[in-house]
Amino acid sequence: MKTLLFGLFLTAVLFAFKADNPKKIIFFGDSITQAGVNPGGYITMLKEMFTKAGNTSELIGAGIGGNKVYDLFLRMEDDVLSKKPDVVVIYVGVNDVWHKASYGTGTDADKFTKFYVALIKKMQAQGIKLILTTPAAIGEKTDHSNQQDGDLNQYSKIIRDLAEEHKCGLVDLRKEFLAYNLANNPENKGQGILTTDRVHLNEAGNKMVAELMFRELMK
Amino acid sequence: MKTLLFGLFLTAVLFAFKADNPKKIIFFGDSITQAGVNPGGYITMLKEMFTKAGNTSELIGAGIGGNKVYDLFLRMEDDVLSKKPDVVVIYVGVNDVWHKASYGTGTDADKFTKFYVALIKKMQAQGIKLILTTPAAIGEKTDHSNQQDGDLNQYSKIIRDLAEEHKCGLVDLRKEFLAYNLANNPENKGQGILTTDRVHLNEAGNKMVAELMFRELMK
Amino acid sequence: MKTLLFGLFLTAVLFAFKADNPKKIIFFGDSITQAGVNPGGYITMLKEMFTKAGNTSELIGAGIGGNKVYDLFLRMEDDVLSKKPDVVVIYVGVNDVWHKASYGTGTDADKFTKFYVALIKKMQAQGIKLILTTPAAIGEKTDHSNQQDGDLNQYSKIIRDLAEEHKCGLVDLRKEFLAYNLANNPENKGQGILTTDRVHLNEAGNKMVAELMFRELMK
Amino acid sequence: MKTLLFGLFLTAVLFAFKADNPKKIIFFGDSITQAGVNPGGYITMLKEMFTKAGNTSELIGAGIGGNKVYDLFLRMEDDVLSKKPDVVVIYVGVNDVWHKASYGTGTDADKFTKFYVALIKKMQAQGIKLILTTPAAIGEKTDHSNQQDGDLNQYSKIIRDLAEEHKCGLVDLRKEFLAYNLANNPENKGQGILTTDRVHLNEAGNKMVAELMFRELMK
Repeated sequence: MKTLLFGLFLTAVLFAFKADNPKKIIFFGDSITQAGVNPGGYITMLKEMFTKAGNTSELIGAGIGGNKVYDLFLRMEDDVLSKKPDVVVIYVGVNDVWHKASYGTGTDADKFTKFYVALIKKMQAQGIKLILTTPAAIGEKTDHSNQQDGDLNQYSKIIRDLAEEHKCGLVDLRKEFLAYNLANNPENKGQGILTTDRVHLNEAGNKMVAELMFRELMK
Repeated sequence: MKTLLFGLFLTAVLFAFKADNPKKIIFFGDSITQAGVNPGGYITMLKEMFTKAGNTSELIGAGIGGNKVYDLFLRMEDDVLSKKPDVVVIYVGVNDVWHKASYGTGTDADKFTKFYVALIKKMQAQGIKLILTTPAAIGEKTDHSNQQDGDLNQYSKIIRDLAEEHKCGLVDLRKEFLAYNLANNPENKGQGILTTDRVHLNEAGNKMVAELMFRELMK
Repeated sequence: MKTLLFGLFLTAVLFAFKADNPKKIIFFGDSITQAGVNPGGYITMLKEMFTKAGNTSELIGAGIGGNKVYDLFLRMEDDVLSKKPDVVVIYVGVNDVWHKASYGTGTDADKFTKFYVALIKKMQAQGIKLILTTPAAIGEKTDHSNQQDGDLNQYSKIIRDLAEEHKCGLVDLRKEFLAYNLANNPENKGQGILTTDRVHLNEAGNKMVAELMFRELMK
Repeated sequence: MKTLLFGLFLTAVLFAFKADNPKKIIFFGDSITQAGVNPGGYITMLKEMFTKAGNTSELIGAGIGGNKVYDLFLRMEDDVLSKKPDVVVIYVGVNDVWHKASYGTGTDADKFTKFYVALIKKMQAQGIKLILTTPAAIGEKTDHSNQQDGDLNQYSKIIRDLAEEHKCGLVDLRKEFLAYNLANNPENKGQGILTTDRVHLNEAGNKMVAELMFRELMK
C-alpha cells in the first residue's frame, strides 16, 4: 500500500517537476552514506528516481566510515564547500552516540550541537540549501530497550530543533524507522527489518531512506 | 487521589493484617537503599507504616553505595544469609548500567542475569521469600531521551522475567516512575519530580517506593 | 641463545623429572587460552614438552573467549572443581581491563581482587596447586604508550601480590613480554612481535608462554 | 638545590632581559589553567616572576574547566585570535584522555592531532608564537600503573612531535612531573606530590609549572 502510494507520488512528480533545473546535491555523512553509493544503496536508488523523474541533478556521495559531527566539520571545506553544491543532506549522529560505548570517544551533546551549528552556518553562508536527518537506529527493538535508545532520542531532538531554528529541511529517519518497526517487527528483533546489523541499511532500509529523501528533495 | 486511595488501602490493611506474624525483612541494594534508612528514607517510612499497621516485623537496611549485582553476590553470605531473614527485597541495577558510562565498569546484560539468578537460587534455597524491584530511573525525562533509558529498560525487562520465572514478588519501580512522571512532569525535567539528582529519591520518590513496597510486602 | 639455554634446561629436566608422577593440569582463562589448544597453541606446545620429558600429565584447556575474572568464578564449579585437577593455571585480566574501553563493562580493580581471591580460596580449599599469570599485553609498544598500559600494570601488580600472599606460583608474562619487546621491537611496533593483533599470541608468543609455564610447572 | 639554581637563573634573567619589550601572553587551556589565575596559581606566580624581572608583559588566563582540544578550537576566535596576543601557551590533553573513562566522550588520537594542528596553523598564520605543553598527569604513581598512563604518554608524544614539526616551544610537563615524582614520591602515592587530586596542581605543582614556563617564555 505504502509502495503504491509512493508510486503515485512518483508519477505525480514526473509531471510536475521542472526537468530544466538540475542541481548538485551532496550527501554528507558516515559509513551509512558511504555505503549509499553501492549498488542498491540509498544514493544509487535516488539517482534512479531522479533519472525516472527526468531530473539531471548530480548526486554525490560524501560518506566516510566512523565519522562523527566534528569529522564532517574538519573535512567540510574539502569535501563540500569547494565543490559548490546547491543542496547538502547531512546524515550524522550514530557514531557520536555509539562511540561512547565502543571507544570512549563519543561526542558530548553540547559539543555535538556546537559543531552541527558550525556546519549549518558555514554552509548556509555559502547559499547552500540544507536537509538534516536524524540518526535512524542502533538496534531495531520497538520497546525502547536498545542500549543507545535514550541517547539517540536526545541527539535526534537536537537535530529536529536545529532544523527548525535554522530553517533547514528535515528527514526524521529516527521517527520513521520506529514507526515502521512498530508495524513490521512484531517479534521485537534487534536487526533485520531495516538494517543488516542494527545500524547499516538493508534493502528495505535503503529503499525507505531513498523515498523519504526523494520527497524532501522534491519539495 | 492516589494518596487517598492509598490511605484507604492502609486502613483496610490495619484491620486485615495479622499482627502476630512478625518477620525479618532485609532491603538489599545500593546507595538508594543505603539512604533508605535515613530520616524520610523509604525504609524509615516503611517502618512507620508497619508500626501503624500493628506489625512488629524487623526491617533491616542493607544498602551500600555503588553496588552492582555482583557486589550483592559477594556480600550475600555476610549481609543476608547469615542473618536468616524471612523476606529479602532486592533493589539493584542502576549502577550496573550507569557505571558503563561513568567508569567503564558496568555489568554485561548476560552476566547481570547470571549473578541475579545466583542470588535468587541461593536465597530461595534457604527458604527466603524474594521481592525484586526494577531500577527506577537515571533521569526523569518522559520522552525516552534520558541517556541510559534504553539500557535501563533492557535490565528492567530481565528483572521482570526473572521474577516471573522464579516466582518472586515484583515491584516494578521503572514502570511506576515513568507513569508518575508522565502525569506530573509536563516540562520534561530531568530531575526533581521523584529524584533529587536523576537517581536518588526525593521525598515524593521515597514515599512512592515505600507505598509500593508496602503493598507488595502485605500480600 | 635463549632457545639453546632452554634446550639445555629441557634436557636437564628429562633426566631429573620423575616420569611416574602424572598430574591433571587445567588452564583456566579467556580467548588466549581457548586458542592455546589449537595446533601451535601454547597448551599444545606444552603437551609436546611434557611428552618429550616423559611426563604423562593430562593438560586440559578451559579457556572461553571474552572471559573476565567473574566469568571464571561463575564457571569454576563446572569447569574446574568438578574435574578434580591437581594444578590450575589461571590466565585472566586482559578483558577486565580491555572491556572498560570497548564495552563499558570492564572490572573495577577492587572487585577484580575480590573475585580473584574467591577463586584462589575455593581452589586451594580443594587442595589444588595454583599458578597465576599476569596479563601479557594489549599492545606491544615499549615506550609505555599502549592505551591500557597503566591499567594492565595495575592489575598485574594485584596478581603478583595475590600470588605472594596466597603462596601460588607465578608466571609474570607482563614482565617477560615487555623485556622481550625491549630487546626485539626496536621500531616500537604495536603488534607482530609476540602477538598477532596486540593481544593474541603469534608463534613466538605461544612459544614464550609455553616455555615459561613449563619451567613453573616443573618446579 | 633546584630552587637555588632557579633563583640564579631568575637573577641572570633580571639583568639580561630587555624590559622594554612587553608582550601579550595568553594561557589557553582547561580547569588547570582556569585555576592558574587564582592566588597561588601558576599564572599568578608567573605574573610575580615577570614583575620581578622588570617585564611588563600582560599575562591572560583563558582556561575553562572540562575543555578538550576541540573546545579550544571552538572558542579560539573569541578567546585568543580576537585579542591579538603575541604568545599563546596551549595546555590541553588531560580531558581528551580522561573523559574516555568518565563520560565516554574523550578524543580519538587522530582527531586530537587534527584539531591541534588546526589550532597551530590558525594561530601561526596570525603571527602568534606558540608554546605547547604536554599533559602532566592523571595520577602520580611512578611505576606506570596510573590507569591513563599509556594514553597520556601517547598524547604527550603527539604533542612533542607537533612542537617539533611546527617549530613551537615545548614545556614537557609530563616528563618533568614523572622525573620529579621519581625523586620525591618514594611511596608511589597517587596524589599529593604535585597535585591535590591526581590532576589539579597543588602549591609545588603550580610552582614547578610556573618555573618551567618562565624559562621557556624567557627564551
